[in-house]
Amino acid sequence: MRASWTWGAGVDSNAAMKTSLYALAALTAISIPHIALADDHLDAAATALTSDTIAYDFVEGITTEVGPRQAGTEAEKRGRDWAVAWLKANGFANVADEPFEMPTWVPGKNPSAEIVSPFPQPFVIAPLGNSVSTEPEGITAEVVEFGNVAELRAAPDGSLAGKIAYISHSMTPTQDGSQYGFAGPARWVGAGIAAGKGAVATVIKSVGTDYHRNPHTGGTSFRGVEATPAGALSLPDAANLERMFDRANGQPITMKLVLTPRDLGVTTSGNVVGEIVGRDPALPPVLLACHLDSWWNGTGAFDDGAGCGIVAAAAKHASRDGQPLRTIRVLFAGAEEVGLFGSIEYSKAHLDEPIAVALESDFGADRIWRFESNFRDTNPDLHAKIAASIARFGVADSSIVATGGADINIARDQKTAIIDLQQDGTRYFDLHHTPDDTLDKIDPVQLRQNVAVWTEVARILANEPGAIKP
Amino acid sequence: MRASWTWGAGVDSNAAMKTSLYALAALTAISIPHIALADDHLDAAATALTSDTIAYDFVEGITTEVGPRQAGTEAEKRGRDWAVAWLKANGFANVADEPFEMPTWVPGKNPSAEIVSPFPQPFVIAPLGNSVSTEPEGITAEVVEFGNVAELRAAPDGSLAGKIAYISHSMTPTQDGSQYGFAGPARWVGAGIAAGKGAVATVIKSVGTDYHRNPHTGGTSFRGVEATPAGALSLPDAANLERMFDRANGQPITMKLVLTPRDLGVTTSGNVVGEIVGRDPALPPVLLACHLDSWWNGTGAFDDGAGCGIVAAAAKHASRDGQPLRTIRVLFAGAEEVGLFGSIEYSKAHLDEPIAVALESDFGADRIWRFESNFRDTNPDLHAKIAASIARFGVADSSIVATGGADINIARDQKTAIIDLQQDGTRYFDLHHTPDDTLDKIDPVQLRQNVAVWTEVARILANEPGAIKP
Repeated sequence: MRASWTWGAGVDSNAAMKTSLYALAALTAISIPHIALADDHLDAAATALTSDTIAYDFVEGITTEVGPRQAGTEAEKRGRDWAVAWLKANGFANVADEPFEMPTWVPGKNPSAEIVSPFPQPFVIAPLGNSVSTEPEGITAEVVEFGNVAELRAAPDGSLAGKIAYISHSMTPTQDGSQYGFAGPARWVGAGIAAGKGAVATVIKSVGTDYHRNPHTGGTSFRGVEATPAGALSLPDAANLERMFDRANGQPITMKLVLTPRDLGVTTSGNVVGEIVGRDPALPPVLLACHLDSWWNGTGAFDDGAGCGIVAAAAKHASRDGQPLRTIRVLFAGAEEVGLFGSIEYSKAHLDEPIAVALESDFGADRIWRFESNFRDTNPDLHAKIAASIARFGVADSSIVATGGADINIARDQKTAIIDLQQDGTRYFDLHHTPDDTLDKIDPVQLRQNVAVWTEVARILANEPGAIKP
Repeated sequence: MRASWTWGAGVDSNAAMKTSLYALAALTAISIPHIALADDHLDAAATALTSDTIAYDFVEGITTEVGPRQAGTEAEKRGRDWAVAWLKANGFANVADEPFEMPTWVPGKNPSAEIVSPFPQPFVIAPLGNSVSTEPEGITAEVVEFGNVAELRAAPDGSLAGKIAYISHSMTPTQDGSQYGFAGPARWVGAGIAAGKGAVATVIKSVGTDYHRNPHTGGTSFRGVEATPAGALSLPDAANLERMFDRANGQPITMKLVLTPRDLGVTTSGNVVGEIVGRDPALPPVLLACHLDSWWNGTGAFDDGAGCGIVAAAAKHASRDGQPLRTIRVLFAGAEEVGLFGSIEYSKAHLDEPIAVALESDFGADRIWRFESNFRDTNPDLHAKIAASIARFGVADSSIVATGGADINIARDQKTAIIDLQQDGTRYFDLHHTPDDTLDKIDPVQLRQNVAVWTEVARILANEPGAIKP
């Protein structure tokens, strides 16, 4: 038997086929390596590439049987219960739900943003995390447009009194996701800046790259100012609003905004953990992380059900050929979206238990294209060994120093080894934080490539006798 | 100067570029003819191909300044007022809004469909036209799945008492739109059949080909039975529901459905008309039709703002080189979506005023690929002349007999000449009757190809001295 990795092969459904073709189109000019292995035996990673079902089973299961998992709510709790049962059913040891307390925000229902004049029509909006509610009758006010956060910052103090600020930044797809750093501030800090200048509410163009009527939510921060209502328009609605400015001949654009978020006070979230126990429990474990919570509007497939499926599947496959030397621990963090509470709590609770190395999967389910570590200089042999072992899956080595994802605060706090297995983010911001984050967006072929790469990396790390980051 | 028609050239924005690339991908293996013309002069159609702005201006204007135009509502009235003003501003004569009365249904707000057990989570749903409302507390009932309308018809009488029927037909994209005939009955008659067997409500998989959380609405019929609540799930939600059946091990799937449509009774709609007056007003005119109303959930860009923009632009361009022999009349029909009221009323009002030929544009804004008439046998020279004149735009001749679109009842009632300029429908049912029917989905390059073809056809017809269909 021979495992060859070709895009679009083995796709399971019409939806996935469409997704796969879409991904293929997005990834033009990628040359796909064939995997040369002995015909009579595929190693664990190659087996994962051709036939893994564990990751898909996880993400199909949690999106179907649980659905959205807003942090701190009963839905997240159902997600944790589901994950605990799944880990046990899949042979993980020491499975636990480690609870912690957190302040919980919920979005409310039926948000609306309606242009009142001069061109009355309804827009589609989603509240941003930490937005407060409007009164039930809503806020009706003139909208003032800013091209980006810098323009908003330049507005005179008090100049937005009684106004709704609108930020019309633009974002383009990038393979490495770097445009999130460019466009993200409109969401992260825009509403707080506008509130500081007197705005009664802020509306942003979604931080996203799709063209569907599905707004992108996400957290916003009101550091030092009183929170106001804040929401994101879908990209088509934002474009429509901008055309209204062009066509209004200076008439004011008036919007009626109704948002109904509320704070539930302190509730319980939790981190779910499980282990493939190693032969030498005295050696620090390998930590594979993801997060289990999602925003309320999608089903948390790309963000981050897939990540949890990938790390769990890799932990299983990496021990296929025998118990690994080190324990492989999976961490399904809670309450990531709303402020990394799970990651912070996990580090607090386990700071004095050294880990060997940590990795996180939280950027969708499209293929891994680049490998980064923070021990390339200090442990060049191990870095090179990993790079060489995953080159067959089309993953390039990199000299970029890995800094790790949101859920592995513990690795940064312990200053230990970190690996980043960078996923292709070209279509990530089409789906991120939207209602469209659903199972059909996952391309099973690319998902299996993720599992294969993680399997290989986890297998090498879990069988490494020496310190990973000397 | 030389006009060459290449896909993707001249695209105006990121959104349109993405759309254009999407269209390009959907239209693989199409060979694009170059247009050979004298370098020093482009005829009216070729000019339209390279530089028409009229059609885009129309659809941008009405989607931005009016937005959704649900039949019989004040929004449709604003749409008619806008169109009347636009036609006058663009030099049309005899512009009028011809009112008629109709029964008006409105969708209400905040529909919801929530799985109560065994896997609680919210779904995205839209009411179908003619659905009645649930009580405010909703209907909570077991969902029973049928694979298609035939399976539903086979269910024993009374067997759905107290149940919600769910129809899980599937639909694939087709260039000629023919899958609408295959999948459409689930929406057109499914709810009525289910109601006849005792169902308390019907939920269908959207009749659509996309994978976004945007349900496809559209009319349903309860002929002979008392209407029930009826709605369409988005495709991802429908897929999720079907996975629930697979995973529930026979446990009942219970859904809570809240729909709030209502009938407004009889209100006023209208047909907007305008003319490019011909040199011989005694000759029957050429009728170019589209519809102005839209469903409430999108902005009526593809369906059918584009169609009205195309026919209006063509009427203008066709008279660029001099007053045509015959009058070209444009008909922007009202209330098409909810039952072709405008088309029926127009025929009733004008049945004794012969028209020469009628054409309708109501299948989006993607390229025209095929020409059909109902006078190929009776007026072969004219048919051949038209076919030859639009071949340069990549439009193929066909022996299929044109039957005309929804808005030209008058042509069928008068048994006169009809032409169908078939548009590429490959992505039409990604957008049809959804919130996603917005301006950014229109590819300006393909829109201009439509205008060019219509210009050429309208020019030939309007200057034809003899009977079009002898």
